[in-house]
This record gives sequence, structure tokens and C-alpha cells, in this order.
Amino acid sequence: MKTHLGYVYLAKEKHLNEDNLMKRKLRMGMVGGGKDAFIGAVHRIAAFMDGKIELVCGAFSVNPEISKQSGEELFIAPDRVYATYEEMISKESALPEGERMDFLTIVTPNFLHFGPAKLALENGFDVVVEKPMTVTLDEAKELQDIVDKTGRTLCLTHTYSGYPMVKQAKAMVKDGHFGKIRKIVVEYPQGWLSRLSEREGNAGAAWRADPKKSGLSLVMGDIGTHAAHLAEYVTGLRIKELCADLTTFVEGRLLDDDGSVLLRFEDGAKGVLMASQISAGEENAVRIRVYGENGGLEWANEDPNNLIIKMLDQPRQIYRTGNAYAAPYTLSSFATHNTRIPAGHPEGLLESFANIYRNFAATVSAKREGRTPTAEELDFPSVQDGVRGMAFVQNVVASNESNEKWTKFVL
Amino acid sequence: MKTHLGYVYLAKEKHLNEDNLMKRKLRMGMVGGGKDAFIGAVHRIAAFMDGKIELVCGAFSVNPEISKQSGEELFIAPDRVYATYEEMISKESALPEGERMDFLTIVTPNFLHFGPAKLALENGFDVVVEKPMTVTLDEAKELQDIVDKTGRTLCLTHTYSGYPMVKQAKAMVKDGHFGKIRKIVVEYPQGWLSRLSEREGNAGAAWRADPKKSGLSLVMGDIGTHAAHLAEYVTGLRIKELCADLTTFVEGRLLDDDGSVLLRFEDGAKGVLMASQISAGEENAVRIRVYGENGGLEWANEDPNNLIIKMLDQPRQIYRTGNAYAAPYTLSSFATHNTRIPAGHPEGLLESFANIYRNFAATVSAKREGRTPTAEELDFPSVQDGVRGMAFVQNVVASNESNEKWTKFVL
Amino acid sequence: MKTHLGYVYLAKEKHLNEDNLMKRKLRMGMVGGGKDAFIGAVHRIAAFMDGKIELVCGAFSVNPEISKQSGEELFIAPDRVYATYEEMISKESALPEGERMDFLTIVTPNFLHFGPAKLALENGFDVVVEKPMTVTLDEAKELQDIVDKTGRTLCLTHTYSGYPMVKQAKAMVKDGHFGKIRKIVVEYPQGWLSRLSEREGNAGAAWRADPKKSGLSLVMGDIGTHAAHLAEYVTGLRIKELCADLTTFVEGRLLDDDGSVLLRFEDGAKGVLMASQISAGEENAVRIRVYGENGGLEWANEDPNNLIIKMLDQPRQIYRTGNAYAAPYTLSSFATHNTRIPAGHPEGLLESFANIYRNFAATVSAKREGRTPTAEELDFPSVQDGVRGMAFVQNVVASNESNEKWTKFVL
Amino acid sequence: MKTHLGYVYLAKEKHLNEDNLMKRKLRMGMVGGGKDAFIGAVHRIAAFMDGKIELVCGAFSVNPEISKQSGEELFIAPDRVYATYEEMISKESALPEGERMDFLTIVTPNFLHFGPAKLALENGFDVVVEKPMTVTLDEAKELQDIVDKTGRTLCLTHTYSGYPMVKQAKAMVKDGHFGKIRKIVVEYPQGWLSRLSEREGNAGAAWRADPKKSGLSLVMGDIGTHAAHLAEYVTGLRIKELCADLTTFVEGRLLDDDGSVLLRFEDGAKGVLMASQISAGEENAVRIRVYGENGGLEWANEDPNNLIIKMLDQPRQIYRTGNAYAAPYTLSSFATHNTRIPAGHPEGLLESFANIYRNFAATVSAKREGRTPTAEELDFPSVQDGVRGMAFVQNVVASNESNEKWTKFVL
Repeated sequence: MKTHLGYVYLAKEKHLNEDNLMKRKLRMGMVGGGKDAFIGAVHRIAAFMDGKIELVCGAFSVNPEISKQSGEELFIAPDRVYATYEEMISKESALPEGERMDFLTIVTPNFLHFGPAKLALENGFDVVVEKPMTVTLDEAKELQDIVDKTGRTLCLTHTYSGYPMVKQAKAMVKDGHFGKIRKIVVEYPQGWLSRLSEREGNAGAAWRADPKKSGLSLVMGDIGTHAAHLAEYVTGLRIKELCADLTTFVEGRLLDDDGSVLLRFEDGAKGVLMASQISAGEENAVRIRVYGENGGLEWANEDPNNLIIKMLDQPRQIYRTGNAYAAPYTLSSFATHNTRIPAGHPEGLLESFANIYRNFAATVSAKREGRTPTAEELDFPSVQDGVRGMAFVQNVVASNESNEKWTKFVL
Repeated sequence: MKTHLGYVYLAKEKHLNEDNLMKRKLRMGMVGGGKDAFIGAVHRIAAFMDGKIELVCGAFSVNPEISKQSGEELFIAPDRVYATYEEMISKESALPEGERMDFLTIVTPNFLHFGPAKLALENGFDVVVEKPMTVTLDEAKELQDIVDKTGRTLCLTHTYSGYPMVKQAKAMVKDGHFGKIRKIVVEYPQGWLSRLSEREGNAGAAWRADPKKSGLSLVMGDIGTHAAHLAEYVTGLRIKELCADLTTFVEGRLLDDDGSVLLRFEDGAKGVLMASQISAGEENAVRIRVYGENGGLEWANEDPNNLIIKMLDQPRQIYRTGNAYAAPYTLSSFATHNTRIPAGHPEGLLESFANIYRNFAATVSAKREGRTPTAEELDFPSVQDGVRGMAFVQNVVASNESNEKWTKFVL
Repeated sequence: MKTHLGYVYLAKEKHLNEDNLMKRKLRMGMVGGGKDAFIGAVHRIAAFMDGKIELVCGAFSVNPEISKQSGEELFIAPDRVYATYEEMISKESALPEGERMDFLTIVTPNFLHFGPAKLALENGFDVVVEKPMTVTLDEAKELQDIVDKTGRTLCLTHTYSGYPMVKQAKAMVKDGHFGKIRKIVVEYPQGWLSRLSEREGNAGAAWRADPKKSGLSLVMGDIGTHAAHLAEYVTGLRIKELCADLTTFVEGRLLDDDGSVLLRFEDGAKGVLMASQISAGEENAVRIRVYGENGGLEWANEDPNNLIIKMLDQPRQIYRTGNAYAAPYTLSSFATHNTRIPAGHPEGLLESFANIYRNFAATVSAKREGRTPTAEELDFPSVQDGVRGMAFVQNVVASNESNEKWTKFVL
Repeated sequence: MKTHLGYVYLAKEKHLNEDNLMKRKLRMGMVGGGKDAFIGAVHRIAAFMDGKIELVCGAFSVNPEISKQSGEELFIAPDRVYATYEEMISKESALPEGERMDFLTIVTPNFLHFGPAKLALENGFDVVVEKPMTVTLDEAKELQDIVDKTGRTLCLTHTYSGYPMVKQAKAMVKDGHFGKIRKIVVEYPQGWLSRLSEREGNAGAAWRADPKKSGLSLVMGDIGTHAAHLAEYVTGLRIKELCADLTTFVEGRLLDDDGSVLLRFEDGAKGVLMASQISAGEENAVRIRVYGENGGLEWANEDPNNLIIKMLDQPRQIYRTGNAYAAPYTLSSFATHNTRIPAGHPEGLLESFANIYRNFAATVSAKREGRTPTAEELDFPSVQDGVRGMAFVQNVVASNESNEKWTKFVL
């Protein structure tokens, strides 16, 4: 990147005009995500944004009428709107190679992740799946085995790790900018479950608060896993021990809606993780702070284009998305690779989400077309992250039920 | 919208699951926007994001090799990558109705807006064009005549008016929330032209700073028109008189790079507009403040999901994108219609841009399919805004050259 | 307060022009706070600011030369600069009533709080003392007994509780604005002990990190007590159980420099307290968040004039110091009583500190002059808060050493 | 300052423990500032805070009863509460040197500045006077002549120039950090005169809006002079030409309540100044932005401990009050001299105000005691600033009445 030409060049030289090596669009199928759902639409926006993925088929809903109507509105050929994921995988497998879907996106409630993921992988399709990856740790490990056996790619949508400034944070930690890491504070407060919404017609709340559909923990499965992934992703340190306190504040709720966890990481770092769905008035206030010997960093989802760097004995610095800073401030290639527009034009969650899709698509295409994916392209959450996420939920729940202060993080 | 079910419902009930009435995707052609350009990629992301527009053809560059390579990387059929816009319009016109492009997006330098827009409109194509609409006010008026005659739709991409919180601001002003409007401060400081980048290989700077390609004013054409449009859009008040001071700070530059303008609006409101490309260190710090008898509002592009409301004798309020506030705080239908994801998950410039495309596409489809577009769908910048923008540039330049304090805004 | 006259009236009607009922200035003596110290000067500024307290004597340093020079620079009569606090108390007691000091401010290191406090109280002087009140819980309880017996007033300078917006927060919680309180997050990260400053000539670090002079815990004694007091002050809820993890990150340090604590309050509320002196790059980032059934609040020391209120289903509100809001937003009398200047003119830590002195002085004067102090005047931290603070330190240390998850808060 | 010892040292080494060379407290008299007034109390807090000034006499109000009661509550000896400033100056002059007041603080409405200032100076007293210095430019020039003749010191309380981060900004501009200055934007929006408060019992509004008591312009005299002073103080550049638009928005008001001014400074810099008292919902939102060839700065009164530095091609930096940054970031001696407490503990307007008093007092003492004041001590607004302020008001009003675009700044 040339110096002193201004930020417009970032976009030009670094991403928008980097060569697109994919020979064709990837074809996506979808389980879930019908008109009556929420997260499916987010996945579609993320997948479509860069013009490298097209939606070709789906089993959008258990309700056939909704599935059909969803397919129409999504401009899907009627004969590729299927009643079940089993039918979809079976019929798509039978289509000619140039026509059948390449990968399956799974946006159903948690208890419907494992089945379609397993079947898709075993039938040669790559997979994108919502977090948490499964309902139990055992299922998660089984998926990892299948991925290992089949050589397919599984991508888990831990959205927050897709932001350019999160990637910049990770790069700076890795480069030793802060010295040895001592303290990690990660939090995800929400307020949307402050009332018993699962009984008031909120479908998203209903399945999340249902232990059979959701898993062992509401708050940790739904958002705690995001926080834990973010902490490990940014610092490269893994949780070794924890001490958890889970609470169900809303009367009548069947699962916890708030949790605080003391953490001990490898290499002597310590931390705190807070996840809450009864922090009334909060929206999606994901925030991470990391402190090392020489300084600290702070990043927040609700202000995602600012990475605050606080070094001992220096003024605070704010690294901002999309800038072509001169050395020694030059943004990491992982940050710039995941940026679409020049500095000062905010990118948001949908772009972060789209980064995961774009990197996944580049990796899958590369593998299929015989190229080696770059490190930047391989940078998306994987089946291993899914296994760690399920282990996190299980360990937190075990700690909560224990009178011992510390519970070892068992994988 | 139901009360107390939480913000997740906003997305569900208000936009993502609203019926898609379009019977098919719209087909887009593109003039400009090749691999060596910047804003074309932004337009494509904005157009693709909602899955309702597909790119089918283009004349991406005056350099045929770049155009060809761009077409390949965009997965365009080789026979629909054209050498010139004239060829594109001619050949597309000859294609069957079910195949030819529906509308043309023009993302060339300013001096190449008028030609393709005119030809496209006269050949039955709708048009999306970058601002400023033309190089001269006369051209702009001619385009308006052609739109009037042909009945086609022309959309001008004044991006900042696409944000949900800008639309909320407009709705609150219109509803009389602030009483009679007294004062408007709108600013667009950038720093990227603090050096003579047009001589240092920055292609975007080069044509913008070239009077023949850019027009009468660099700073006012490139960003002042955004600020002027934003002020008039939010307040519904039109500029009647102005007093301008334009400056060329960077030695060797052929056009101005900074300007400040005192404004007088209809109905007695006054204002200040500042546009600058030598505010070193600023990125795209668009900001508007509006004050009425009872309170004021503040909105900034670099923090676009917060609308700050300051009423006399009340705590400040921050309206945030994507919330399902209870009455009397319920967000305007114009805000919610232009929102994709729940509160706390930031939406950015690309979504704002995509709102313009989505509303344009819905309007064009409705007209073609015999439906009446809703007020929300019709809410995108039009050829009239383009004419006012060119008049703004011309009047500012006239005022700058005059020794009279006040220059009437002549259309 | 009249409506619609604007905020300037707040200052006029509410505080600045409220009657001063004190018949004379109070006379302050000081132990510690010489030229070579830090916090003494802060106390003097806080005491002097409102013109109701004068410094008449002191034993400013164990170093007689420094004490003498300090006295000179503070314009103290040479015969009232004493070698020791014992001498000061003895000689001042012997002065005529109209001349001798009224109260003693103690700004020595922790281990030198108890002695002068006890002696002063027993000789008829009121006392202001820095936190933590003593080195051990037993000493703290003994001071409480002495206060009870002597009827004198002891004021503990938990600075953060003096801010107007903290008082507003407390008032809103008490009024039930947020419903039943569920979650409390309080934190005090600093970075100034990220290195072994106690061995590098930093005198303040040296005694704080010395167990004999400081007490059982560095981080909890020095700043954790502030956080614990703030949480209990704002919510009116007392800690009942806790689970603590203390760490010494800096090699060679004799006491902990970081701690995280899970909290359980009375009435079912839960919380997290974080105190850290190795959060490199942080200054004094005290922050509290409280969530109830209907909404939450957030306040931060580094931005103290904003109180952020987040109610379910409403835009966020920012209450700001010094405003004359109309009902139902009218600021609490406790907030306005502790405000000196109109809204928009920031008040800071010194004013918060001065509020403690002013309320202490008003209370002491009222008692001496036969008036009944108002609730607002009585609102400063007391000997009971000092006992709770020492109990907090002791309980945290006990929990840290225990393998049991939960430790009861024993007083 | 030693490196790496942490911020606590700033306070210790730089100010709090710097030697106090004053041999005695200065004695202050006051005209105005009775119980029924507002700004007098602010002056007293500012004067008392550092323990170097005592209030010994006053003519606090034209109402003798209020003056008497004010004196009592301020603990002033009854025989030094005077009926008029003439009486005060006459009687104080007759007191022995070790007893009589040293300087006079004038906190009356504008039209009552000139008389007491002149008389005080001519009788050997130094003077602190509220801005604007006088009602007319002629009076201001006459005061300057008297100062020149008498050799006394006159201090004008342009409060905003007392903040440490404003002084840091000035130092960085002076050091060439930003290169040649191109653009200055300074603004002071308030909302407290959005209604006709002068007719609703607001005494402060009443005299300010009365041309006889206030001067030629309400908005420019009351707050525009602050903005103009701040711009010239920070940049060291003087206004050479201006183009103003003044407005009276509130019906029935006798003077303007809003004004916008295009500015041309020496050395080719340009700028905009906005002052408004009808920006409903604003408090005291003073803000300045300065842009040079290499970067810019931003500072705001409502967030005064942050100085935002935006350099081309670098992350943004936030310089914060009270830090002991290592080189090359070391804070200016002018910033640290005017700081009382360590970083992260906010200082506010009262400390800024107190800096003016402290520097004035140090200068006056030095002169009287035969020392040479340091550059830091001499750094407070002077009679020259008062003359420029009155010239600013007069030139703005002249420009507003002219049809010529540009009016030369005549002194």
C-alpha cells in the first residue's frame, strides 16, 4: 500500500479490487430460514452481499405452506423447495454436478443442527451452521469426526469474529503488542428476555427457552458461546478452569437467563465472562477488553469500527476500520481483507457476517478448484470452535452445579 | 407491533418477513465500476444484498481488457460485457423482454453521467446514477425533462438519506416534534485531499480535481451536495439564499477543496453548511443538527444507529435503529422499513445504500407489475433531487464569486 | 423549580443561592498531606472550595522539615505545625474553643488511620478519614464503638458516592424506577501498578504494596472497597455472599494487584465486582451498571455528568448534571443539592469530593449549633461504611483462600 | 518526569507538590455576586479552591439587604460589606497595607464592568473581570490605557482557555504538530434562551437581553466572545475579516440570539464561528476543531479531559488530562501546570476557572514580591483579550448590517 495517498486506496488496493479467483458462484441450499424466521434472512444477506453465492434450494420450514411461499419470494424454482432436509439432500445429490447445491446452510433451532449437518457432510456437501453447533458435546464431537473423515468444510457463524477491528485486535495480540496477556474481560449483555417472552408469542424465545430444543443452558448456549469464542479468538489463549454462577431471574422460565463466570486461561491469564439476557435495556452489547503487560485493548459490537488501544505512558489510540495507516500503524492484512469500504463509512454486523461467508466460500472454492486458500481466507470459525463451544456450555453448567470453586475445562 | 415482546420482533414483523411482492429479480446493467474503480463495487454490494437484483451486463471500463476481466470476475456472460454504454443499450434493447436488463447503474466520473442516463431513459431503461447527477445544471434539467417525458424512474444515490435514523429524524421533524425549525447545521468534513493526491496516482482524486470531468466545484460537487440534500431531506425546508466562501488550500489543485456556506431556508430557518476535503484526519464525518422551538436532533454518519434527541427540559434521548419502542416512542414506518436486523447489531453505510436500491427496485417492479408503490418504497432520491443538487453547486460557486453577501438560490 | 425557565435556574434556585446556615467556618487540622504526598492536596481543595472550612493546623509529615515547609506554604501559623498527631491533638485541645480545630482530616497511609482517628474522637474532635478506614476489621469495629460512645461524626471519603449523577441513580433505584433489582456489575480497573513501581521510587505504590502498612489486600483495600461501597450505595442492597479470585500479576509484588468477585446480594440480586491495578492503560475507570425488571442504569467516573438510563421499550435517556428538567424527569434533591454549576459545565472529581466535605461540615455545624441536619446534608459515607469496607476486604481474602465456591459475608 | 512510574507522579511532581512561592494569601474584594446572582459563586469557588485567595470585602448587590445577608453568609466582617463599589474602593484604600484587599473581582452585568474596573485600577488594585470586558470597544480601549499607565494586572475570565487540554492543544499547534493551519471551526451552542425567558422572571436573561445593560449583541457578547477567544488562543492566529449573519429568533427579544460567522484569519486560515442561544436542548456545547496540513484536533467543553488528535495516516489519538506520557507524547508544561489530580479523575469547569485565578494570583504575587512570573503563570486572559473581544462584537454587528460580503476586523 502506498503511503500518503489517502484512505480511499485501502478499498481499492486491498480488497474491492483484489482478484476474484472463484470460477463460478457457489450454490447454497438452506434448512430453515422461512418467512416466519429471523436469522435465515441475515444469512442470506451475508451470503448474497458479495455476489459470489446464490441460493438454489431450501427446506425453509416444517410448515409446507410457509416453505413454499418462502421459496417463491426468494425466487427459488418450485421443484427445489423441499419438504425436509432429508429430501433436499437426497434430491440435490441426484442433480448433475453443475447444478446441485454446493453447500448447506443450517439456520434451524439448535436441536435441528446435528441431523442436517451430519447428512450433508456425509453426502459431500459443505456446511454452514448457526451456533451453538449442536445440543450436546457428544454430537459436536461426532460432527468433528465426520468432518475429519469426509474432508468437508464446516463453518460456524460466530459473527463477532468477522469484524475487521476484531481481527486487528487478534493480530496485535499475536504480534506481542501488549506483551504477555494478563486479564480478559468479555461480556454479552442483552435485555430482550427480561420478561417471560417465551409465553407471550415470541417464537424465537420459545424454542431457546425450551431445554429440549435449546440444550443445557439458555444464556450460555445462545450468547455465552459467542463471548467465549471471542475471548479465545482474540487472545489465542484457551480457557483451562472456570467458576460459574447461573441464574434464572424470570419466574416460570425453564432455563437460566444470566450467568457470570470467573475464568483461568492457559499461560496464567485470568478473566471474567458475563452473559445475560435480563440486562434490561441492553441490546447486543458484546464487549471485550484484554490487558497485557504493556497495554490493553477494548472493542464493542455496538461501535464496531473503533478499536481502542491503551498503552502505558501513551495517549489512547483508536484504530478505525478501513484506514490505510502508515507504518508502524499499518492495519493487519486480516483486517483489510475483511473490509469493503473506505474509512469513516461504517460497516456493521451484516458485513461481519458476510466476511465469514466470503472466507468460507473462498476456501471451499479453492479446495474444489485446486487452489490453496490463503490464511485470510481460512480465517472463519470451524468445527473445532463448535466443539469448544459445546464444551464451554457443558463445563459452565457443571461448575454452576458444583460447590467446588474451580472446575477444569474438560473437552 | 406488539408491546413488550422485545426488539427481536421488529425485524420479524416489520421488515425481514414482510411479503416480497416482486415477481422476479430485476436485471441490472452497469456503466463503469470495473476492477480499477471504487464506487462500482459499493453499488453492487448494495444491489445484491437483498437478493432482488442481479447483474446481467456491463461496460465496466474504457479499457477493454479491464472491462473483460471485470465481467469474468463478476460472472457475467462474455457476450454481455460491452465496449461502450452505447453498444450496451443498443444490444440489450434488442434482447427479448425476459432477458434484457431492466435498469442501468451509472458509476462513471461525473462527466460521464449525462450521456448514458439520457440514452438509457430514452430506450426504456430505468436508471440509478451516482451524484452529482451531471456536470451542469442545464444537463440536470434536461434529464428531468426526459424523465417527465418517458415516465421512467431515475434514482440518485444520496447515500446518507438511506439510514433508518435519518428517516426517523425526518419523520419527527415532519410530525412537529421540535416545533418550528430555526437552525440547521450540516457538515461533511473529509481529510483525504489534504495533499495533492491527484498528482500522486490517486485516480479517484485525479478526475474529481479535473474541472472538465468533475464540474464547477470539487468540494461542493463531491460532498457538498450530500450535505445540502441531507439538510433539505431531514427538514423538508428548501434553501432560499446563501453566502459562500470556497477555498483551494492545496497548492497546484485546480478546483476548491473546502467551502463554508451561510444558509437561509424557507420559513425563516437559518443554517450553516460546511464541506471540506482538507480537514486532515477526518474520514467521512457527515453530521447534521437541527433545532426547533422545543428541541433539537443530532445525527452522524460515523455513528449512524444513534439519533440524539435533545428536548428542552428533558433528559437527552437516544433513538437507536431496530428497536420496537412502545408508544409514544414507536419508530416511524420509514425507519423500520429500512432496517434489516434487530437493535444493537449495527447497520452501516452499505445497508443505507442498499435501502436506496431496494426502494428503487420495489418502485420499478411495482410500476412494471401494475402495483402502486408505498410511500416507503417511493422514498429514494430522485431526478428532482439531482436538479437541486446541481443548482446548489452552481449557486454556491456564484455566491463565492460575488461581493454581495446574499445570493438567491436560483433553480 | 419553575418550568421552562431554563437550566440556569437550577444553580440559582437549588444550590448556589440556598441559605448558608453555618455561623462560622469550620476549622480543620490535618494528619499527613505534606508536600511529598498526593491525596492531602485533594482533600484541601475539596475542603476549601466552598469557603466553609479553613485549615488551621497540621502534622503534615513524619519528616519535620517537610512538615514545617508544608505548613509555611499552606499559610499555617508556625506554632500550629506539629511534630506528631498526638502533640497536635493535645495542644489543640488546650486552645480556647473559638480557636482550636473542629475536626481532623487523616490522609496518612492506611496503618496510620486508626490511631489518630481514635485519639481525635476521644478528645472531642470530629474526623474525616481516607478509605480504607483501618487496616483490620477489628480496628474498624473499635472505631464504630468510639463513634457510638462519643457521639462524634466520622466521615469516610468514598469519593465516587459524592457525584450528583450517582445520587440521582440511587434516588431512581429507591423510587422503584427499574423495578426489583436483578443484576449489578461494578468495576474499578486501573493500570498504574502494571509494573513493580513500589521498587522504582513511587512512594504511593510503596506503602500500598506493603502488607504492614496497607492491610490484607492491595487491590481490594485500595480500590475494591470503593467499588463495593458504590454498589451498595446506589442499590441500597447489601452483599450477602461472595466468591473471589485474587491474583498477583507483577512478579516481586507482596500483595494482590487484581481481583474478580462473584456477588450475591440480599433480595436475590446478583453481581460481579472487578478491581484491578494491572489493567494496563486504564486510568480510574470506575463504572457501575444496575439492571432491574424494567430497565437499567449505567454510570462511569470518567464521564461523570452523564447517567445513562435504559428502559425496556424506550429510547435511551441521558440524565445530565445540573439540569432543571420538568416532571416527571425532575432531578432528585440529592442530585441538585450536590451540584454547583449549570448543566453543560462539567463538574468533576474534586466537586464530588467537595460534596462529601460540604455535607460533613453542614452536619457537624448543625449538630454543634443545635440545628437538625437535612437528609441531603447527612448523605456522606460514615463509620458504618468503613466497617463494611473492612469486612469486604476480609471476606474477599477469606473467599480467595477457600476452595468452597461461596463465602458468607461476615461482618 | 520519570518514565514508567505511572500517572500518579504527574500530580506529585508537576503541580500539587510544586513549591508555593506566595508569601501570603491574596485578599479579594467583590463587586456583585450576591445571594441572588449566579456567576459570583462560581468565581468564589474558583478563587478559594487552591487556598491562596481569601475574600475580605464586597459590595455584593445594589440591594443593601441582600448585600448584607450575602456578606454574613460569606463570613465577611460586617464593616467590610459596602453599599457601593465606590465606597469599597475608597474605604479599602484607607486600610493598612497588610489588611486591605489586593484585587477586585467584578461580577456585575456588563454595563457595570467599566466603572469599578477603572476605579480599582486607578486606586492601585488589580482586577478580575467577567467577559465581555465592557459594553463598548471604546471603554475597552480606555481600560487598556489605564492598565498600561498604572502597570496593574487585569484578568478576564475566558473560562474555556483554562482547561489543561486546551492548553495542550495550543502547545501542539505552536510546536508545528499539525503543520500550517488551514481551517478552524469553533462553536458555542446553547438552548437556554429558546423561549422569552427575560420576560418570565429569569434575571440573568433579563439583563443580558437588555441592550442598555448588555451591549450591541446578546449572543456575541455573552458567548460569541468566548468562541472567538478560544479560536485565537488555541491557534495563535488572529481574525482579519469576517462575514456575519445574526438573527433574533424569539419574538419579542430586543437583541440577537443566534449568529453564524465566516472567518478569515491571518496566514490564510479560514474558519466558521457559530454562537447560538436558541439551539434548543444544547447546554454549553463549546467545541473547537482545528485542521492543519498534517492533521487536526478536536476539543469540547462537555468532555474537557479528552483532546482528540487526528493525524493523516495514523490512528486517532486521545490525549487525556493528567497523564505522565513518555516522550514524544509528554504533555506540555502548560497542560500539567494547570492540572490538579491524576489521570482518569475528571477535572471540570471549576478547575478551569480556578486555573485562571491561580495564575492571576501567582502573577500578581510575583510582581508584588519581586519575583518574575513564569510563562505558565502569565498564561491567563488579559486586557488585550478584552479589547479584542469587544472589537469582535462590534465587527460582527457591523458585518451583519452590511451588504458587503467581507468586513475587515478593525480594532
